[in-house]
Amino acid sequence: MVTCAIIGATGAVGMEVAKCMHSRQSTFGPTAPALYASPRSAGKVMSTLYGDLTIAAFDVDLVNSSSYDYIFLAVSGSFSLEWAEKLTNGGKTVVIDNSSAFRYHDSIPLVVPEINLAAIGPDDKLIANPNCTTAIAAMALHPIHAKYTIETLIVSSYQATSGAGEPGMQELLEGTRKQLEDLAAPPQPAKMFSHPIAFNCIPCIDKLQDNGYTKEEMKVAWETRKIFCAPDMKVSVTAVRIPTLRAHSEAISIQTKDVIDVAGVKEVLATAKGLVVKDDTANDVYPMPLTSSGADNVEVGRIRQSLVFGDRGVEIFVCGDQLLRGAALNAVLIAEAMEGRKA
Amino acid sequence: MVTCAIIGATGAVGMEVAKCMHSRQSTFGPTAPALYASPRSAGKVMSTLYGDLTIAAFDVDLVNSSSYDYIFLAVSGSFSLEWAEKLTNGGKTVVIDNSSAFRYHDSIPLVVPEINLAAIGPDDKLIANPNCTTAIAAMALHPIHAKYTIETLIVSSYQATSGAGEPGMQELLEGTRKQLEDLAAPPQPAKMFSHPIAFNCIPCIDKLQDNGYTKEEMKVAWETRKIFCAPDMKVSVTAVRIPTLRAHSEAISIQTKDVIDVAGVKEVLATAKGLVVKDDTANDVYPMPLTSSGADNVEVGRIRQSLVFGDRGVEIFVCGDQLLRGAALNAVLIAEAMEGRKA
Repeated sequence: MVTCAIIGATGAVGMEVAKCMHSRQSTFGPTAPALYASPRSAGKVMSTLYGDLTIAAFDVDLVNSSSYDYIFLAVSGSFSLEWAEKLTNGGKTVVIDNSSAFRYHDSIPLVVPEINLAAIGPDDKLIANPNCTTAIAAMALHPIHAKYTIETLIVSSYQATSGAGEPGMQELLEGTRKQLEDLAAPPQPAKMFSHPIAFNCIPCIDKLQDNGYTKEEMKVAWETRKIFCAPDMKVSVTAVRIPTLRAHSEAISIQTKDVIDVAGVKEVLATAKGLVVKDDTANDVYPMPLTSSGADNVEVGRIRQSLVFGDRGVEIFVCGDQLLRGAALNAVLIAEAMEGRKA
Repeated sequence: MVTCAIIGATGAVGMEVAKCMHSRQSTFGPTAPALYASPRSAGKVMSTLYGDLTIAAFDVDLVNSSSYDYIFLAVSGSFSLEWAEKLTNGGKTVVIDNSSAFRYHDSIPLVVPEINLAAIGPDDKLIANPNCTTAIAAMALHPIHAKYTIETLIVSSYQATSGAGEPGMQELLEGTRKQLEDLAAPPQPAKMFSHPIAFNCIPCIDKLQDNGYTKEEMKVAWETRKIFCAPDMKVSVTAVRIPTLRAHSEAISIQTKDVIDVAGVKEVLATAKGLVVKDDTANDVYPMPLTSSGADNVEVGRIRQSLVFGDRGVEIFVCGDQLLRGAALNAVLIAEAMEGRKA
């Protein structure tokens, strides 16, 4: 029997990992995961699809003594940096880390299972899960890249508050509630975001880098290049937080090496895994947070020839659940695939 | 004494025109405008900064008999198409039309006063006011174009519900209120938009065109070229409605003919009219709906060298009040400038 643990189980991503495992009823379905979190959550009982589960306080020796087959890390980058390698427990445990701590290490595979499972070697025990904005876009971009070779990407994101976890979503809901009581009142002070997010948008996510881009923006560039094995791909991103709950959208301009056309793009996307084409704008069918929230598949639509790159470019719009494809689902799919390899 | 009328005075833009006139205390400040609307609003008393004003039912002969110096048309395109030319009253009245009805006629000037006032000839009596998304972007783009010659624009918009007028804003507020009562309930059915807008974003504004772009997207292309006298500029736009109230934001990738750098762009934008540079990302200063709503000036920030176009490109983020710079203020500034010319 395959055993696993979720560390950071009380956060938005941790909770989705448990949900994902249960609802997929795959490798991990039958067995409840062990749940770990910070000492202040220890003893707390969480209601899950597996029934009520009690949270244990994280302790590396305690965790390692259980020799789990898989550990899902849904914690901060600094926590991962400190503990992830130790949690591989001398090679007994595969650790799938949702933070950005190891994504840019040459020796650590960064994986979207539908795209580059082959990046995981037989001895790899620490696997990085990509950034949510990257993973969602990659589902639509990789099939296009495989057929036409993408040279350039220009991305503008419309990112949900779940990117800042459960407290991010709560800040949106509470701030909006308060603002609706009195539209003329000053907004609630922000805690999770740099500014109030209710009825606002914030064109800055994560820390500013020396080149004027934020780390969130550069993550999309760095990670897309690594996952696609395309070190020369040019990527320019504007990452913007908008007042939505749990699905990220992205408007993407694509410039390709080969001549590209809309019909060919639709054809290749229609059969791609993890993707649903929603492209009937005349009948109001296109990707939206409303329809992609809670869904496993990334929605892609608004597919049209680029007016800038001509016959070597298309424009698309994608939307995907930030907590699922952007985090928990991708992690569970990695573990399933690694377990499947053994069989 | 300069006299004027607002037709469509009960709409969001019409109301802002009256506010703008009063608060600027310019050419039009001292005299209350005459207010006209549809017969169902006739007799209604509107509270304005000029005091209570009574709405009259629109009737072309009644309006023309008053020989206003300026008429602000804040009505639908089909209404403008039918009445705008007649309302010029044989050359006695200047009509400034906020609809898209005449924007693409070669003989009708399409004007952002800070940019192309010279497009208005001495005999022009019908002037088109640009699309809101176009006008807001143009304030930041034109100074850059004048210095570096823009060849290519890629724009992703984050558009407020005020673009659908007062009922659009009400639909956001009501839909959000209802959703907050029960997050799991199906959203309120949409009337003003194609889908519910609360906690959602909708990547489709206005009608689909044959080339796969929406009319809103093409308006930005067509109008920017006309206002800038740059018929060969390549422009590709994704127009997206987001759950905000009255300020549009835009992420813009710019590719120029000449070599361009961030310092040079900041320098030229710092002295441009109608613009405020908010570009200190490290200290959380950038354009936002929260700060630009209700403000005359368009905010510009996140100015950085393009990672795609290299030394011939920059990326910027702009945000401006849709009802002011995107509509009412631009119209009032046109009238002020035309009146100023006579002096």
